[in-house]
Amino acid sequence: MSKSQSFTTNLTMSHTTTVLTPDGSMEQVEQIAIESPYSIALNDEPIGSSMVLPIGLEEFGAGFLFGQGYIKEPGEVKEVYICPDGRIAVYADVEITEPKEVIITSGCGGTGKISKEMLEGAFDPLQECTITFPEISSFIRQSLQSSPLGPQTHCIHGCGFWQNGKLQVFYEDVGRHNAVDKVLGAILLGKITPRGAIYTTGRLTSDMVLKCARIGIPIIMSRTAPSSLGLAIARRSGATLAAYARPDRLNIFNAPERIVI
Amino acid sequence: MSKSQSFTTNLTMSHTTTVLTPDGSMEQVEQIAIESPYSIALNDEPIGSSMVLPIGLEEFGAGFLFGQGYIKEPGEVKEVYICPDGRIAVYADVEITEPKEVIITSGCGGTGKISKEMLEGAFDPLQECTITFPEISSFIRQSLQSSPLGPQTHCIHGCGFWQNGKLQVFYEDVGRHNAVDKVLGAILLGKITPRGAIYTTGRLTSDMVLKCARIGIPIIMSRTAPSSLGLAIARRSGATLAAYARPDRLNIFNAPERIVI
Repeated sequence: MSKSQSFTTNLTMSHTTTVLTPDGSMEQVEQIAIESPYSIALNDEPIGSSMVLPIGLEEFGAGFLFGQGYIKEPGEVKEVYICPDGRIAVYADVEITEPKEVIITSGCGGTGKISKEMLEGAFDPLQECTITFPEISSFIRQSLQSSPLGPQTHCIHGCGFWQNGKLQVFYEDVGRHNAVDKVLGAILLGKITPRGAIYTTGRLTSDMVLKCARIGIPIIMSRTAPSSLGLAIARRSGATLAAYARPDRLNIFNAPERIVI
Repeated sequence: MSKSQSFTTNLTMSHTTTVLTPDGSMEQVEQIAIESPYSIALNDEPIGSSMVLPIGLEEFGAGFLFGQGYIKEPGEVKEVYICPDGRIAVYADVEITEPKEVIITSGCGGTGKISKEMLEGAFDPLQECTITFPEISSFIRQSLQSSPLGPQTHCIHGCGFWQNGKLQVFYEDVGRHNAVDKVLGAILLGKITPRGAIYTTGRLTSDMVLKCARIGIPIIMSRTAPSSLGLAIARRSGATLAAYARPDRLNIFNAPERIVI
């Protein structure tokens, strides 16, 4: 059992494919993203398993437990161990209580379910901040540059966090949820605070926006689109929601006042 | 309570956004995909809830229960009722037994969890068939034409099924899983048989390939990429796995013999 990820794991594998075109067929080697099952335990109690890209696993463990409602805020997580048998063991200062009524989400990613209470409950005030348009340009440009696996495998989502004028963390995963969970885990492990902007390559469905707003992130951005419920949750929590974000363009769906031109 | 979907539901909503570019800001109306919570009951027992695009709900209900392992094959489903209170009531000739050890999946979509037994178990023989390259071209072209919501909302996945030389069904959803579940539901409701090819706009992670192979579909195609476990399951079941599928090009990752040039 090792606290740090001292063992390295491959994130991609090569596979020879047969490419068909109207002109005939040829062999081509493709890179495939590794999807590995990991189980997550909280205070030695098994909580669930998830398919993940095996990197940023400490953050993932903490973020996963936040997404499922077991961990509420930074400071609760005491230790995370990544065990070579595929277990992420999180120790936290919390009582384990089962969420009551759960909804399986439309989301692509590890969390998979959220409690009805979390979906319908009130939000604490967000951690206020603003971001300038040039900062957003740098944020998105640097995020895309930080994701070599994306263009290699076409099977990866990325998620970054911008704070104090720079890209603080960037994570990748096979699930858009897992990538966000890794950023939330970085908040829970005290590497960053929620006072900043999050950018995901994935769609902003209800569960994606919900967990970002629950942890207090005021600015939520996506390379692609929100769903109706994703927007509804942004409006209810007051979070800024920006979609179709590119270095030179973005559409603000809610609370444009936090983005300074 | 109505057996057919006699009530119509909006699938998109309009929202005025603020578009920012280096030249300034302007208003722009965007279309947003509707994500609605539906609960699924089997023989009056609540099984779960899911966020879905509210169309093809009878198929979704049946396919969701197949994905979760409650329904095993066509013929078991007797009736599906869509209730205006957001409930999909499926009646089927099955005993309800809880899956033992479940894994929350990396997948984007409603299913969210699969049993370890399903992931590691043996596969029944697939429903054998072949498909020609010109058929694949028509299949993909017609599928993309059948998905007006995709380019409108950027928040939709599509899934189609090709059998006997034509596109038999095509479904859309906010989750790539849900769209596949709707096609599997069409099989379970007897509208099509598994002897054909399935095409999804979503990534082929483990759970996506698993449910297609479990129901017996021999040819599984995606607009985008597989993950390592998605490929492993295709190899174990013997299914043809083709990725990056375009009308004039595709990469075959496993079992190319079912695709005839």
